[in-house]
Amino acid sequence: MTKIKIGILGYGKLGKSVEENIKYHKDMDLVGIFSRRGPGSVHTQTPAYHIDDLEDFKEDIDVLILCGGSKNDIPVLGPKFAKDFSTVDVYDNHNDIDGYFDKMDAITRQNETTSIVATGWDPGLFSLMRILSDSIVPQGQTYTFWGRGLSQGHSDAVRSLDGVQDAVQYTIPKEEMIGQIKAYEDVDYDQKDAHLRQVYVVAEPGADKSAIEDQIVNMKDYFLGYTTQVVFIDQETMDKDHKNLPHGGHIIRRGLVGDQAQAIMELYLDLTSNPDFTAAVALAYARACYRLNQMGKYGAHTVGDVAPNLLSQRPKKEIRQTMI
Amino acid sequence: MTKIKIGILGYGKLGKSVEENIKYHKDMDLVGIFSRRGPGSVHTQTPAYHIDDLEDFKEDIDVLILCGGSKNDIPVLGPKFAKDFSTVDVYDNHNDIDGYFDKMDAITRQNETTSIVATGWDPGLFSLMRILSDSIVPQGQTYTFWGRGLSQGHSDAVRSLDGVQDAVQYTIPKEEMIGQIKAYEDVDYDQKDAHLRQVYVVAEPGADKSAIEDQIVNMKDYFLGYTTQVVFIDQETMDKDHKNLPHGGHIIRRGLVGDQAQAIMELYLDLTSNPDFTAAVALAYARACYRLNQMGKYGAHTVGDVAPNLLSQRPKKEIRQTMI
Repeated sequence: MTKIKIGILGYGKLGKSVEENIKYHKDMDLVGIFSRRGPGSVHTQTPAYHIDDLEDFKEDIDVLILCGGSKNDIPVLGPKFAKDFSTVDVYDNHNDIDGYFDKMDAITRQNETTSIVATGWDPGLFSLMRILSDSIVPQGQTYTFWGRGLSQGHSDAVRSLDGVQDAVQYTIPKEEMIGQIKAYEDVDYDQKDAHLRQVYVVAEPGADKSAIEDQIVNMKDYFLGYTTQVVFIDQETMDKDHKNLPHGGHIIRRGLVGDQAQAIMELYLDLTSNPDFTAAVALAYARACYRLNQMGKYGAHTVGDVAPNLLSQRPKKEIRQTMI
Repeated sequence: MTKIKIGILGYGKLGKSVEENIKYHKDMDLVGIFSRRGPGSVHTQTPAYHIDDLEDFKEDIDVLILCGGSKNDIPVLGPKFAKDFSTVDVYDNHNDIDGYFDKMDAITRQNETTSIVATGWDPGLFSLMRILSDSIVPQGQTYTFWGRGLSQGHSDAVRSLDGVQDAVQYTIPKEEMIGQIKAYEDVDYDQKDAHLRQVYVVAEPGADKSAIEDQIVNMKDYFLGYTTQVVFIDQETMDKDHKNLPHGGHIIRRGLVGDQAQAIMELYLDLTSNPDFTAAVALAYARACYRLNQMGKYGAHTVGDVAPNLLSQRPKKEIRQTMI
């Protein structure tokens, strides 16, 4: 069997997770890890190279997984490397996905490469569920609940406050509202009312805790308007209980499927590690990316363009016999 | 806009549900209902015809939705009409889906028609979730729970017993086991242990209720080995509370996405009317069937072969801007 040759670009949390997950994908081989830090600083059994050497690997990599950040890395590295490589990314800037798609589409069509953009889970699997459920239940409403999960951006915002030594923030969906939706009750959903924010803070010695709490709950765009709970803990507890990166969520569509009939469709995810699951999704889409390219389907794609069978290690006949 | 022209073959519950749901699909027109009973006995505003006249409509129908039963109708009518029509069905005999697929595939390829077989929700959406979650979490286990829902086959089996005037049977998933799976606890899942069976019976006047109950709980292949609860009610209560056809279920995959990381993916459906939701799914796949045929993708397909965007009324750009 010819294996799909994977390259990892970027060796932060996501890159490490892709490296760790690839063993579950028997039809894939990891060619190398490419990063700005280069080979010396990457401690792993996988061959590591400097990003400047990536173009030498054009013929050796079937799919390059872009593991950098959405803010600064992917918008630059995607268009740069899509000329020479088929790529998969987890670009998550929802407002710019269509613009990024257009850029990647032009480059990949011209160079006969294939890109799948914005995989992962939101965007990604949640997007897939939005499309699927809206198609089946056109007359309805979609509700998104994130969490219980750790929000990196909110955690960083709290850490930046004076007197804060360490902090994490969890987004928690209001289970009561989820229950009401599933019981076909009327709800007045908006994103703020649908979530709680829970903040664990390690204060610096002698810091004014009530001043810290006050700054947190009144922080605009982050906490103001939300129900926010602040809990002070010590660093030992922080290190023991709050260094994983759990996440997940619910996406629920409810609507009419007849004059008297309603339906609820829900995708629920619970992830003990957000980057590990995101990597798992990216790897399945890397398989699809390789296959689309082999089929001559050049250009950019989203999860909406990818048939589920393209993601699977299993032959179609086996799928029909065991999974349909 | 050219609308997709839909024909309904068979006018039982599913056919009626397709007729009722089509108004939510603005890009579709219903050409007619075709049945063995013919026009005289179908009371609806949709034009109704005898099944023998269907072949005259070759040029007038883009997609024919096969609304007959899986036991006797679809295995005969699918291959018969796939010569002249692109078709969508909800064939649900899991053991025969691959065989049926092969038959339909040969006929449709030869005749440049397109079929999507085994849509609906199980098979159908649950199949899609099996493929998707197995692809992303290859190292894991999939758990299926059906219900709370009315099982037509089990209801019929109870109705056939001596002394039974009317009966319905509900399949109920064990919520406790679902909770254990979602809490990452070990479970000893098998289909029998995972479900309860609840039977509502109207006994004939003077019938021996304990004999009826005894027959039910010991019925092989239906109730023996299951936790079965039998409740006797009067016909008025039956007619008032038990004439809808609710169904639904959970399909849950749990597994590893790293050495330390686990993930849970769940699709949950709750349907106040099984046939109405099944029809809603079939209609979305009818749109995909039409588009595949227009693209020259002849042959048979399952839900695994269909990209989500093909199901949607919305343009791809709008999907990228609003749903990804």
